[in-house]
Amino acid sequence: MSTAEAGDGAGNTEYGRKAFKRSKSHFADRITADGRDGWPVEAGRYRLVVSRACPWASRALVSRRLLGLENALSLAVADPIQDDRSWRFTLDPGGRDPVLGIHFLHEAYDKRETGYPGGVSVPAVVDVPSGKLVTNDFQQITLDLATEWRELHRPGAPDLYPEALRDEIDEVAAGIYRDVNNGVYRAGFATTQQDYERAYADVFRRLDLVSDRLGERRYLVGDTITEADIRLFTTLVRFDAVYHGHFKCNRNKLEQDPVLWAYVRDLYQTPGFGDTVDFDHIKRHYYVVHTGINPNSIVPTGPELSGWLTPHHREQLGGRPFGDGTPPGPVPADEEIPAGHRP
Amino acid sequence: MSTAEAGDGAGNTEYGRKAFKRSKSHFADRITADGRDGWPVEAGRYRLVVSRACPWASRALVSRRLLGLENALSLAVADPIQDDRSWRFTLDPGGRDPVLGIHFLHEAYDKRETGYPGGVSVPAVVDVPSGKLVTNDFQQITLDLATEWRELHRPGAPDLYPEALRDEIDEVAAGIYRDVNNGVYRAGFATTQQDYERAYADVFRRLDLVSDRLGERRYLVGDTITEADIRLFTTLVRFDAVYHGHFKCNRNKLEQDPVLWAYVRDLYQTPGFGDTVDFDHIKRHYYVVHTGINPNSIVPTGPELSGWLTPHHREQLGGRPFGDGTPPGPVPADEEIPAGHRP
Repeated sequence: MSTAEAGDGAGNTEYGRKAFKRSKSHFADRITADGRDGWPVEAGRYRLVVSRACPWASRALVSRRLLGLENALSLAVADPIQDDRSWRFTLDPGGRDPVLGIHFLHEAYDKRETGYPGGVSVPAVVDVPSGKLVTNDFQQITLDLATEWRELHRPGAPDLYPEALRDEIDEVAAGIYRDVNNGVYRAGFATTQQDYERAYADVFRRLDLVSDRLGERRYLVGDTITEADIRLFTTLVRFDAVYHGHFKCNRNKLEQDPVLWAYVRDLYQTPGFGDTVDFDHIKRHYYVVHTGINPNSIVPTGPELSGWLTPHHREQLGGRPFGDGTPPGPVPADEEIPAGHRP
Repeated sequence: MSTAEAGDGAGNTEYGRKAFKRSKSHFADRITADGRDGWPVEAGRYRLVVSRACPWASRALVSRRLLGLENALSLAVADPIQDDRSWRFTLDPGGRDPVLGIHFLHEAYDKRETGYPGGVSVPAVVDVPSGKLVTNDFQQITLDLATEWRELHRPGAPDLYPEALRDEIDEVAAGIYRDVNNGVYRAGFATTQQDYERAYADVFRRLDLVSDRLGERRYLVGDTITEADIRLFTTLVRFDAVYHGHFKCNRNKLEQDPVLWAYVRDLYQTPGFGDTVDFDHIKRHYYVVHTGINPNSIVPTGPELSGWLTPHHREQLGGRPFGDGTPPGPVPADEEIPAGHRP
């Protein structure tokens, strides 16, 4: 969830003279097979709004690709640079999302709740007919894509949240959320040396645990790609480009951890992961928007990206990336990451 | 040369809405064997004032150690954190340099020239009897230590600026100065994306050239340690800790360049180099003082330093570190780098 409000690119947050806090999503309706919240799963009805810069929104980008939901759930990509009205569709002709017909994501929020005082965040799922925001609940959206949207999955779609493994996935993901996904933000937006040092310690303690775990197994839980891997991936893929320098998580680069670097490249090179990643959007968002920690808004030229495409040799650990399923097909032509924004 | 003036920790500089410029040292008297500027070489007469944070001052620290001038030229170490009165002796009892009896380096500048409007920079050499600044000419100080101070060198001192190699040393050092020593500052203090990108390109183009050069030879010029190595070392030793993140020179860490990483570790592990390096002073200076680029003044915990002590295998390239001389002896007890400030 990323918003302009907090100046941190990560929605629903408080960022002031106290420790960085990420608060709960406000709009938590669920789109379900039975439509019990009033929002039944339906092909073509909803639009997923993301920023490719945002790790929380990128989870949904990966899930949507892995599950083959590109045709069922259309995609709006916001400009990585927010202005004071938050996420905007300035990448589209006329600065207007062609399906929702709005210039700013906040318009969908306003349709849903007049005068909503909170932040405008991505990922957001919008009901196309009414133009109303349905949910910005980044923790739930991908779980529902994996479980409630089954009838619209592509043939051969993997089971990203298998019943038998849910407790383990939830537990692994909870630790990674606290210490890594959100930990890097706590480090980067700390306003005291002590808060920063605590967050830094959390980040690397957890990464070391995760690195140990992944030394002998290809994926975090079970022997296939699950929700847990998606959640870890979207932070790791940003680590060297943004979190290492900009957020001062600089004990070492991911490239210097042989296990995690191979793991993240394995996923990056798996259809559905790397083909959603826009390094230009990622770098420009963090470095330009966060003037509180990078006042000159200069975007670093590095790091060198060619390493992302080098062999990772993780196949040697076994594992079946898609379980009994198959890899997703090619990226829709209008969703391809431009050359220059990727290795 | 490091000053507080410019907010960049690097003296005599201009840092505004235009490209970063480092200007010439104002006080360029020379201390020579024949005393032609009125300042003859004399044991115990002068005091070298440094910050261990500053790469320019650190050149003099290394030269002094290699040449065994510790007893002939005493040392004052300024606090790595300047205040609005610039470099200060707050590390000493009572906040007063015990030999010069002053609280701030600017007092020696004032004694030399009333109302001097320029920046107060290190390295500075002060005449103890009069309390006057003699020189802050960082480009000349080490050359004079190597050549004019010969009668006071220790037995076995190396020739750091051999006559036959001076042209080559000067040429190599000039390119390294422009693109690397000063290039990292131009990158870090750029106020436009374009200036930054030009400096970044210079830094890495030159580092690649230097890396090629050092692939098959142990030292930059000739087969012994010279002035050229000292000048490159004081930038490289700061690279991963400061310039990579803080100055956005982030194509890769030095640790990721096998040649340069081995080269800088070789020097670091050579008596006279690593024993002058205080990573705590280095990190605290840059990150705390430069609020223009790091407004929260939080000092990163990384990088991990243990790698500095690992084998570098550069002996295999041959070379004679000290030529016909010998390594310097141990560091004077009161000049040792405290545990916790080094690997």
